[in-house]
Amino acid sequence: MASDNIEKVIIIGSGPAGWTAAIYAARANLDPLIFAGRPKSQPTTILPGGQLMMTTEVENYPGFPDGVTGPKLMSYFEQQAARFNTRIVTDNGLHPDVSNPDDGHSYSYHDCQRVDLSVKPFVVIGEDDKEYRAHTVIIATGATANWIGLENEKRLAASGGGVSACAVCDGALPVFRDKELAVVGGGDSAVEEATYLTKFASKVYLIHRRDQLRASKIMAQRAMDNPKMEIVWNKVVVDVLGDDMISGIKLKDTVTGEESTQTVGGLFMAIGHTPATEFLQGQLDLDDKKYIKLDDSYRSTTSVDGVFAAGDVVDSVYRQAITAAGMGCKAALDAERWLADKGIE
Amino acid sequence: MASDNIEKVIIIGSGPAGWTAAIYAARANLDPLIFAGRPKSQPTTILPGGQLMMTTEVENYPGFPDGVTGPKLMSYFEQQAARFNTRIVTDNGLHPDVSNPDDGHSYSYHDCQRVDLSVKPFVVIGEDDKEYRAHTVIIATGATANWIGLENEKRLAASGGGVSACAVCDGALPVFRDKELAVVGGGDSAVEEATYLTKFASKVYLIHRRDQLRASKIMAQRAMDNPKMEIVWNKVVVDVLGDDMISGIKLKDTVTGEESTQTVGGLFMAIGHTPATEFLQGQLDLDDKKYIKLDDSYRSTTSVDGVFAAGDVVDSVYRQAITAAGMGCKAALDAERWLADKGIE
Repeated sequence: MASDNIEKVIIIGSGPAGWTAAIYAARANLDPLIFAGRPKSQPTTILPGGQLMMTTEVENYPGFPDGVTGPKLMSYFEQQAARFNTRIVTDNGLHPDVSNPDDGHSYSYHDCQRVDLSVKPFVVIGEDDKEYRAHTVIIATGATANWIGLENEKRLAASGGGVSACAVCDGALPVFRDKELAVVGGGDSAVEEATYLTKFASKVYLIHRRDQLRASKIMAQRAMDNPKMEIVWNKVVVDVLGDDMISGIKLKDTVTGEESTQTVGGLFMAIGHTPATEFLQGQLDLDDKKYIKLDDSYRSTTSVDGVFAAGDVVDSVYRQAITAAGMGCKAALDAERWLADKGIE
Repeated sequence: MASDNIEKVIIIGSGPAGWTAAIYAARANLDPLIFAGRPKSQPTTILPGGQLMMTTEVENYPGFPDGVTGPKLMSYFEQQAARFNTRIVTDNGLHPDVSNPDDGHSYSYHDCQRVDLSVKPFVVIGEDDKEYRAHTVIIATGATANWIGLENEKRLAASGGGVSACAVCDGALPVFRDKELAVVGGGDSAVEEATYLTKFASKVYLIHRRDQLRASKIMAQRAMDNPKMEIVWNKVVVDVLGDDMISGIKLKDTVTGEESTQTVGGLFMAIGHTPATEFLQGQLDLDDKKYIKLDDSYRSTTSVDGVFAAGDVVDSVYRQAITAAGMGCKAALDAERWLADKGIE
């Protein structure tokens, strides 16, 4: 902590970007404080760690040739941040030495309730209404994939049962090879994900609630020209079938109301993402999709001097653990240089 | 391989960016071909892997709470790329299944001799003069830190003996804590690295060959104001002392020619980096320091449509394994989308 109880850096968020920012900030002796938060999509208390906590097998995070589970990977990130004395805000005070989160905690991590970025030092309010002040803030709150909201959808997504919101992450898994798969959505990224999946699947159904795609013409044409893709018009998914593994989906026609069943070996959501920026409204520049706008897209600087952003909260393009982690590193190094520029020890 | 023996993607380089591009390209079924190359600074054949092959302990690559050696980390990256059938160009043909590089190879990886990016498909010539053609090329050839060129400097750098070219990577290692350290250089980044090291060191000598710094005024002033920093003017390092661990440096005065010895517990080079772009001269846009210019700094696109770049070869700012890996992922996903846009299967 800097003098006068002003933190050098507060990090908000604990996915790959947040923990990487913590690792780098801690190693730069910035003594970071982190709000590890709780995924908004999960009102029950679960371990922090962002979207990867919903992911079973991660095969594409470089460094793990045999793959690693999402929660395991995030616990490695956390242990590494803790090893260099990152302080984590919890309902039991600050914990600098969470050396083995696998053992479970008797306390909960705290979310950040709100921030005031219009004053310097910045003000960050924790969920217990305690006020923290900081010279720099790194925002790494991520984005959550939009889900339909069905109980079986969530259950199978959480257990690796063939339901996913990321074709690039999961499409190449053996379980989806040569299967018939369904993608829900109708925008450019839905077509992109469905096209991606045709590399592995025997067939891909693109399930869309309307009678035309929202995707750009060229993308829509690509979908229609793809011999492995079939667009299923005017349908919504009303249930996901299967116990341990998805076996099919129940569809409802949005025009006639008629219900039908489609056998599939995998279901991919592509109905957008929601960046966790609600608490930032009016505080710094967001784009029209509510992602934080970077001031310099190569760096992590935002419209507010001293506030840096990293990970999916700025990224509607790549959304990978490794890209988020890279941005977390940039944010910490940018904050470190900002503090050095200002002569703040 | 695509039809007509045209590769979908050729990757040049095998540091964190190159292997990550391979992992993502392979998982996207692009069947990548990689020139793993050999560091230019090492005329003798060593394992590929980029700058990390010169690094003993890596403490800041997220996912390894207890640290990992540079060569080990790169072998994990390689195994992961190989697991998804990345084909590596060697003097013994293409090897898609290098499952355990630790066992050593009886063959050598090949470097890429030259490229022709003015024709489509692009032409890549291997070191055996064999010609490869590709729809897309990902360049991840990295940059090498500049060294003085002393025998003992290289020896101690390679063995973790307290000589390094990256303060951010190595400065926080216990071995440098509360020691007197020396930084060689006089530019902005030398002052930045020396300032960074004052967080850990008891004192930092900034060794500069001239009587004023090349650094900007504000940076030079910061160096002179820092009570832990002492600028040593008009001196060059002519030898590094110590057997397993550096014990001191021998200096020579550039004006009087007088020699002296300074006891130090660590030596950091900050005399610039040289991106490996010589083979690209005139083929795509480079900046004034010879780094590849990105067309869109958030992405990996370059001035040549279909050519993507990632890692230290574009990055004079952050130069970390994790940032390079993030860029490698972007390059592979950009190449994948480029091929999908063109309808190339």
